[in-house]
Amino acid sequence: MIAVDWGGTHLRLYRLDAAGAIVERRRSDQGAHASHGRHAEVLSALLAGWDDPDLVLCGMIGGRGGWQEVPYLDCPAGLDAIAAHLQRFAPPGFEGRRLWLVPGLRDGSGAVPDLMRGEESQLAALLERLPPGRHRACLPGTHSKWVTIRDGRIDRIHTAMTGELYGLLRRHSLVGALMPGDDEGFDGAAFDAGLARSAEASGLLHHLFGVRAAGLAGRYGDGLPSYLSGLLLGHELRGGLAFDGACPGPVHLVGSERLLAAYARALAALGVQVQRHPEDLAAHGLHALWTRRANPARGASPAAAG
Amino acid sequence: MIAVDWGGTHLRLYRLDAAGAIVERRRSDQGAHASHGRHAEVLSALLAGWDDPDLVLCGMIGGRGGWQEVPYLDCPAGLDAIAAHLQRFAPPGFEGRRLWLVPGLRDGSGAVPDLMRGEESQLAALLERLPPGRHRACLPGTHSKWVTIRDGRIDRIHTAMTGELYGLLRRHSLVGALMPGDDEGFDGAAFDAGLARSAEASGLLHHLFGVRAAGLAGRYGDGLPSYLSGLLLGHELRGGLAFDGACPGPVHLVGSERLLAAYARALAALGVQVQRHPEDLAAHGLHALWTRRANPARGASPAAAG
Repeated sequence: MIAVDWGGTHLRLYRLDAAGAIVERRRSDQGAHASHGRHAEVLSALLAGWDDPDLVLCGMIGGRGGWQEVPYLDCPAGLDAIAAHLQRFAPPGFEGRRLWLVPGLRDGSGAVPDLMRGEESQLAALLERLPPGRHRACLPGTHSKWVTIRDGRIDRIHTAMTGELYGLLRRHSLVGALMPGDDEGFDGAAFDAGLARSAEASGLLHHLFGVRAAGLAGRYGDGLPSYLSGLLLGHELRGGLAFDGACPGPVHLVGSERLLAAYARALAALGVQVQRHPEDLAAHGLHALWTRRANPARGASPAAAG
Repeated sequence: MIAVDWGGTHLRLYRLDAAGAIVERRRSDQGAHASHGRHAEVLSALLAGWDDPDLVLCGMIGGRGGWQEVPYLDCPAGLDAIAAHLQRFAPPGFEGRRLWLVPGLRDGSGAVPDLMRGEESQLAALLERLPPGRHRACLPGTHSKWVTIRDGRIDRIHTAMTGELYGLLRRHSLVGALMPGDDEGFDGAAFDAGLARSAEASGLLHHLFGVRAAGLAGRYGDGLPSYLSGLLLGHELRGGLAFDGACPGPVHLVGSERLLAAYARALAALGVQVQRHPEDLAAHGLHALWTRRANPARGASPAAAG
């Protein structure tokens, strides 16, 4: 089968064998937003030579303004529930294939609903692997997701706008105007200083102005982006670690190596253990969902109750 | 004399008589950033027909990237100290005039220095009027300033990046993409809901994603910008009210009517009294500084010790 992880700003295709091993990968920068109105064309081109009939797609491609909107599924939700809600999709030009879209998840337990779309497919792979009980995962990114898992089901969602805000500040703000070009390295000391600053109670809006004040004073030099990064991560972590009460065990981190290195460093500074997982977890999760859809009764894992 | 309040995005000129009453006003949208490199030309054009020799200028015009940089003066600082540090400035084309630039203020008491440039001149008018003792002022804007005043001197500064962040989110973010055009009205119920949300401990980064989630769910309709505004103000107020301990008396609010209405509403919801002052306070403050410069010994107010 073919697993398609199609977010707002990325597109990754994986070809998997029947046992769920990744055989081949392709990627493109044609995110669901970038390829607006040209989704069929973009996908067809990337599929050249891959004849497998079954495609399972996750991410913003199934969101509003994507290719075809799929309603959110309510939490808690486990593998079987998500698999049962895969939505069959038959766009012109894909005759002879079977396409499914994965629903996003919605946590309505708080005053404001929280949402994910795409991350549920990375988490699906974790749901298969983790033992029963409580677990916590963090998927950093444009909209970082913090999730609690309970007995094989995604229980609660807490999103922080960290990555998007970092990008806005970097590109459009007076703070960003004090920073070097986009290809800065990582400055551990500046990152740690930003992280320490985040612990002060005076609030993020004040801390953000402080980045400007520090920049005007020449502090941190080219490390100012790392200072900002540490500051924002610190604010995110404090909210993410607390949002659903204490949770035993490590935080399961899912994402790119570069992002995870920063998150692991920040969590270590707070005395929190982590377990890292690569971002191609989505391929395995999509395979697991596709398998469950075909055979929902096979599972003996606690997730079967989802 | 002529008072010139020249910030990054605004330029306001006031002509005052010897007693300090405003006789005439002129304004332009040529802020210190917008008129980069053309400051002399912009100012000359606005001065047409005003022959008064003395001009006192405050704001970003005296900052880095302005017309002529003036070093920051350290807090605590009162009227006499600021007046003593007015910097004479003689650009070509202004022969026969006397120009002075007001220094910004720097509060180095915290881990990261805090700064103001322009607001000290609005506060100068308050320093003249307030009795000895402790007072607190808030000057909302792109970078909202919270200030404590002690016995006629500006004691501490706390800045929140509220206005700039609101603008960034409105114009460049996924949250802003869900909002109507720029000329929205004020929605009191949505504003209050955002304010209430800010009191939840889950953090601003999470609350910002919540604006998107609320928008996707259709909550607040065209009031979504007011919800965002209430949310950001709430976060600012909590930091600003706490930053230098409790302070008796009302919060002195200085700014435009529209902004002050929102801040007064939010502070009232927190049970805090306010006293409002118009933004042309800068004209009176610049006049007071100009008068003090000429005659530093005349003051019998406690500020004379500054």
